[in-house]
Amino acid sequence: MSVELTSLPDLYAPISDRLSIVQDIVNKELTSRHPSVNELSRHLANYHGKMLRPALVLLSGQAAGGLTPTHEILAAVVEIVHVATLLHDDVLDEADMRRQHRTINAMRNNETAVLLGDFLISHAYHLCSSLDDLHAARAISATTNVVCEGEIIEVNNRQNDALTEDEYLEIIRAKTATLTATCCALGAHYACDDPVVESALREFGLCSGVAFQIVDDVLDIAGDESDTGKSIGRDIEEGSTTLPMIHAIRNADTSTADTLRAMIRGQKPVDIAFVQTTLDRTGSIDYALDVARGHVQSALEQLGRLPESPALQSLTTMVEFILRRQS
Amino acid sequence: MSVELTSLPDLYAPISDRLSIVQDIVNKELTSRHPSVNELSRHLANYHGKMLRPALVLLSGQAAGGLTPTHEILAAVVEIVHVATLLHDDVLDEADMRRQHRTINAMRNNETAVLLGDFLISHAYHLCSSLDDLHAARAISATTNVVCEGEIIEVNNRQNDALTEDEYLEIIRAKTATLTATCCALGAHYACDDPVVESALREFGLCSGVAFQIVDDVLDIAGDESDTGKSIGRDIEEGSTTLPMIHAIRNADTSTADTLRAMIRGQKPVDIAFVQTTLDRTGSIDYALDVARGHVQSALEQLGRLPESPALQSLTTMVEFILRRQS
Repeated sequence: MSVELTSLPDLYAPISDRLSIVQDIVNKELTSRHPSVNELSRHLANYHGKMLRPALVLLSGQAAGGLTPTHEILAAVVEIVHVATLLHDDVLDEADMRRQHRTINAMRNNETAVLLGDFLISHAYHLCSSLDDLHAARAISATTNVVCEGEIIEVNNRQNDALTEDEYLEIIRAKTATLTATCCALGAHYACDDPVVESALREFGLCSGVAFQIVDDVLDIAGDESDTGKSIGRDIEEGSTTLPMIHAIRNADTSTADTLRAMIRGQKPVDIAFVQTTLDRTGSIDYALDVARGHVQSALEQLGRLPESPALQSLTTMVEFILRRQS
Repeated sequence: MSVELTSLPDLYAPISDRLSIVQDIVNKELTSRHPSVNELSRHLANYHGKMLRPALVLLSGQAAGGLTPTHEILAAVVEIVHVATLLHDDVLDEADMRRQHRTINAMRNNETAVLLGDFLISHAYHLCSSLDDLHAARAISATTNVVCEGEIIEVNNRQNDALTEDEYLEIIRAKTATLTATCCALGAHYACDDPVVESALREFGLCSGVAFQIVDDVLDIAGDESDTGKSIGRDIEEGSTTLPMIHAIRNADTSTADTLRAMIRGQKPVDIAFVQTTLDRTGSIDYALDVARGHVQSALEQLGRLPESPALQSLTTMVEFILRRQS
């Protein structure tokens, strides 16, 4: 999830003291007695971004009753898991740049990026197993099971121009939203003993994650390169069929739909201007944003089940920001 | 670790009924509700090989006092961890074949092999966290921390023609022997409450793993391709400096040593006949096998601290076999 940077200090005000502890836990867990491993870990600073998943753990915990040292550890665990997935994603996508810095695979090689991702995921589980009970270890590993499955199914569906909206939603729930759901659920679990609150925050995290991924996919087609810092049309280039394209193929005339399908299958070069014009005509960007808006609405409804608090207000603002993302 | 196939039924006699349960646990853990994931998992049958790590858990447990259902689960966990490392190793080594079958990366692509490895490691931790206590989760994640670190350091030392014997031993302890040590230690831990037995079996696993890896590296240079099923000289090709080469560089005349160094640095083509003749003259294969023999001896001494049993006899035979490996 990405929100406008200027607003983060306000959003994070209820948890700002905790977030720096989380970063310390991450740094300590990844410190090795081997200088060459530490040198690699230092490059990961560019991968952390806005620490949104740790923020979800902490804000959910705060909103559900209050924070404990366990929350800080879990916030570190989910951040390490997230950075591990970024490292492997960059290898899979052959990405050279991430947040204006060279990726590990570009700076070193794919081997190092794969192994560093493995090192991180191992340390995430290691940190998680340092807790006093097994609940978090079970929740995190069950979550990564689903995330990995989602990524495998996504790769299996590359160049599948017949992907349905339901299949698309299932993939993004698995690869993106399951982790945000678990962040919020774990935050709640270790803050209170109320299954209603835990379930509301899990559902909040799930809906937010789905909305976030839809907007991410919209930006890949309709975003401004100078805002996103990424080239546009990468998903189509790699054969990923996302919601705007699914809608356009369903609603364009046969000849236009065939052209879009051929681009996804890699049989025609991606003409992003043609794609944008088509999606404009079929209203597919608006349609995708409407689906995202529906998920944001569902997320907000879940928050209605919790008492008012500054943390709850931050969660509300964060999810509303998803629809205003430009990058 | 690899031993002659004909002897496995005898070696495994004390645990044969358990090993099929272990395979069932592995299969069940990796079964997905997505047919495309199951189709991938089916290919993993070629990766399981001789199930030596599960056998180490079970034989150690048996030798230390007796088996419990926890041993079967842990045996499944270490096998899944091992197969995950093979999947990523094959990507790193760009290997096309494993045990006379095409690798997942060759059959599909690197992306799928990386993600399937991630899927497996996640399921290993998931299975581990299904146990009633945290000891195993902590031991397994601490072990994979070390394994990953060892692999990173190995990759960092590619084309390092100045690698010392101590550095080499530290790498193989980390990347190979830590897991075999943990297999044996966990087997003991869940069988008895005797730290002396647990420590003896951990040390047995560590020494056996080191000996195994040294012999593996010897076979890469001096093995018979028709026995090993792999082409000879791959380690030198990829710039890995192994014990026979370290010894030869130390003991050959300056000009010959320079040639060996240039091959490791990729500055001269690998001339395996020249390498073999040189290592024969410097006695470097014998030297490496002597170091392996010393570790086998240490492993056997550890077993001397346990009472006689059929399982102990199997462990003894397994470690003695290491020096007679041809593949």
